Amino acid sequence: MELDRRVLLGAGAALSCAATSSPAQAQSPGRPPVTSTLARYLVQAKPDEIPAHVRREGCRSLLNYVGVAVGGSGHETVGRAIAALAPFSGREEANLLGRRERTDILNAALINGISSHIFDYDDTHLKTIIHPAGPVISAALALAQHRPVSGPEFLHAIILGMETECRIGNAVYPSHYEMGWHITGSCGVFGSAAACGKLLGLDKQQMAWALGIAASQPVGLKIQFGSMTKSFHPGRAAQNGLTAALLAAQNFTADQTALEGKDGWAQAVSHTVKWQEVTDGLGTRFEAALNTYKPFACGIVTHPAIDAAIQLRNENRLNVADIAEVQLHANPLVLSLTGKKEPRTGLEGKFSIYHCIAVGMIYGAAGERQFQDAVVREPAVTALRAKVIVQPDAAVDPAQCDLAIRLKDGHTFRRHIQNALGSLKNPMSDKALEAKFFDLADGILPAAQARQLAQACWTIEKSPDAGALARQASI
Amino acid sequence: MELDRRVLLGAGAALSCAATSSPAQAQSPGRPPVTSTLARYLVQAKPDEIPAHVRREGCRSLLNYVGVAVGGSGHETVGRAIAALAPFSGREEANLLGRRERTDILNAALINGISSHIFDYDDTHLKTIIHPAGPVISAALALAQHRPVSGPEFLHAIILGMETECRIGNAVYPSHYEMGWHITGSCGVFGSAAACGKLLGLDKQQMAWALGIAASQPVGLKIQFGSMTKSFHPGRAAQNGLTAALLAAQNFTADQTALEGKDGWAQAVSHTVKWQEVTDGLGTRFEAALNTYKPFACGIVTHPAIDAAIQLRNENRLNVADIAEVQLHANPLVLSLTGKKEPRTGLEGKFSIYHCIAVGMIYGAAGERQFQDAVVREPAVTALRAKVIVQPDAAVDPAQCDLAIRLKDGHTFRRHIQNALGSLKNPMSDKALEAKFFDLADGILPAAQARQLAQACWTIEKSPDAGALARQASI
Repeated sequence: MELDRRVLLGAGAALSCAATSSPAQAQSPGRPPVTSTLARYLVQAKPDEIPAHVRREGCRSLLNYVGVAVGGSGHETVGRAIAALAPFSGREEANLLGRRERTDILNAALINGISSHIFDYDDTHLKTIIHPAGPVISAALALAQHRPVSGPEFLHAIILGMETECRIGNAVYPSHYEMGWHITGSCGVFGSAAACGKLLGLDKQQMAWALGIAASQPVGLKIQFGSMTKSFHPGRAAQNGLTAALLAAQNFTADQTALEGKDGWAQAVSHTVKWQEVTDGLGTRFEAALNTYKPFACGIVTHPAIDAAIQLRNENRLNVADIAEVQLHANPLVLSLTGKKEPRTGLEGKFSIYHCIAVGMIYGAAGERQFQDAVVREPAVTALRAKVIVQPDAAVDPAQCDLAIRLKDGHTFRRHIQNALGSLKNPMSDKALEAKFFDLADGILPAAQARQLAQACWTIEKSPDAGALARQASI
Repeated sequence: MELDRRVLLGAGAALSCAATSSPAQAQSPGRPPVTSTLARYLVQAKPDEIPAHVRREGCRSLLNYVGVAVGGSGHETVGRAIAALAPFSGREEANLLGRRERTDILNAALINGISSHIFDYDDTHLKTIIHPAGPVISAALALAQHRPVSGPEFLHAIILGMETECRIGNAVYPSHYEMGWHITGSCGVFGSAAACGKLLGLDKQQMAWALGIAASQPVGLKIQFGSMTKSFHPGRAAQNGLTAALLAAQNFTADQTALEGKDGWAQAVSHTVKWQEVTDGLGTRFEAALNTYKPFACGIVTHPAIDAAIQLRNENRLNVADIAEVQLHANPLVLSLTGKKEPRTGLEGKFSIYHCIAVGMIYGAAGERQFQDAVVREPAVTALRAKVIVQPDAAVDPAQCDLAIRLKDGHTFRRHIQNALGSLKNPMSDKALEAKFFDLADGILPAAQARQLAQACWTIEKSPDAGALARQASI
């Protein structure tokens, strides 16, 4: 029998910890010291070095995160996870957003991370398809309830966390994603570890260990899309990263080249890697500033059409009863992914471009509310859906479209969408983000509480206690 | 910007759970239904269908596991993990083996799994280099303290768990291992989920979900060898598998083809896969019966020489003072991996074939005790080490050796080792396993308690309450 070198060698599970502490040994030959370079940056970074526009984007990410987590908190996915794990929860020091229960901070990181992804309505780093906030803020906010931290420190930590996961994602995308990994979970664990490590005040050595312990715990496979486990991924990534940081704070050692070294993370999870994406321009180039937010609670492929429908509706004060026909000229992906002509449930409505356009025209919105079962069955919606015609055209970019509305009197209104609302070039305004937030919180938090909560997100840098946000977001 | 189909589609995080419940949809075209076949077997398997020799091996695995977990429990790796996580632990219903503390069952699964791997002295499934017991028994034993279970049910569950992880390991070995994964953690999570799922009485659907949730949480990279995170791997695998089973019991859904499907586990973590290793001969061919146990607390490469040294010592009642020279004829790997001529610490002693032979000759043993710092510095040991000569010879199988001892009076004793003690063809006897157990427990548990504990492992099938074992293994 062929025996592996490692088996033959055997000894040394936890005994030779000292050996990994030497910087000389830590660097693999021919590989840049990625883990330790990143750790050093994270430890040395200071809040006032972050440009104002990046800090502002951090506030927007926070607002969007709290909104989607509160909005998703009532879903049965969340309820089942709580039922499974609450019997083993520790001291109830952290809030579950949108809910009454309190749990220990590790369970709160998990549950809030699950809630944030329920509607697939969270933020997106478009280069990697990472949803940055879920793994990072779920962990950092829970930790802030255990170890009080000021608003500026908190905002800084979550920006660094999102920066970390997006940079690592850039380094391995698309190979890593194509292998099957749900990149939000598999890279998110680093973001959580970085943010929590910063909040815990880890030194460089400990921060490298935290990233190393995180490297041993990637979470998430794309095959889970369509099951509850998809939402489990950002939650578990948050929990794993927090665990890694807590262990590192107690000097629990890991390899210091865990990302880049032989038999390390990148070797195991990707066929290609661009390490300069992690290490270049740290502190000057900010991936966290490239976060985007979904204006509509359905797949991005439908967004240009919904955007056009809402614009035409609002500008022309159209009466739906006057409409004879709606023509959409769009990339063939739109039909292949969302071609359901007669949806019967809210979920099916998300896969119906016909329904998406109809609610955009009728309600001027396509939030979670417009994908409730009752809305899908409304006679006005059903009638308008039947008037929508889709013309697939491979020449049209998937992020663009042309929409034409012909009235019964012959009038026609047209709109070309070059950059759909929510894209990097046409981001949601602060006001639109806030409207999305209120829509998500509606029915879960009292209106006054929701207003105060939104304000607390915008002004997090003025807060003496960031953890208070979690209490404000709970019932 | 190129957008992924999944981004464009977007919706459907946790909402379409029902869709994954259909067996028709669950099977990917052209792929065998591995996850569901395995789940069905696990659910339908009955204790009395397991052959006696397999059940006996299960008892041996249990005894060895409890011994190494108790033995490793005092290490600072364990102490640091407890310090990091105890503040967040829930109801104290599970024991930490070899220690006074009690924690919730999820933390106990983690901590006991860490303890079991500290000395790298645990069991080995030689085909895959998986250490089967750690991830499985750490989780099952903790669960048995929350939900009482009889000894026969418990033994059955841990055999099924070890069977599951070794079969999945066989399917992806060696590609998976070569990619960098520490296979004990990355496959162990399935073993833990299977054992815990069986104890929780999951139905077929739930068991497939448990395996699916486990698939999203592989743990462990080989780069961590030499740091504390290596021992974290089996512990975290235990905890992740237990979490997966608890979630599945609450109908938390996952994809039913998570192992074999497109964008599933095997695609992400291995370049090759042999699914028949998982599905063929379920219930008739038992990988769990192929478990082996280390007789010596150091790398397997040194075992033939230690075996020979102890045999010659015991058979000839040699007086160490009479020895003029010891010659070892062995594979070159022995020197390249364990060639440290003058070790200064116990850990270095494990990497010194000279020290290994010397303690074998002097103590007739090479347990943890013989690798303490003080033993490495003993004058008699130092003197004998200096008399050892190693002759590398590539023609000698690494699992074999020839040892010759020449006395000062000219007498020479020789021993050829064909199958070293602890190998599949020359397994440790029950008595030798028990001696190893007592050696590990010595100084941690009182002798009478250790004897009762060993007896409880051997007679687990007579126990009305398997969880009692954890109490008996604690202070």
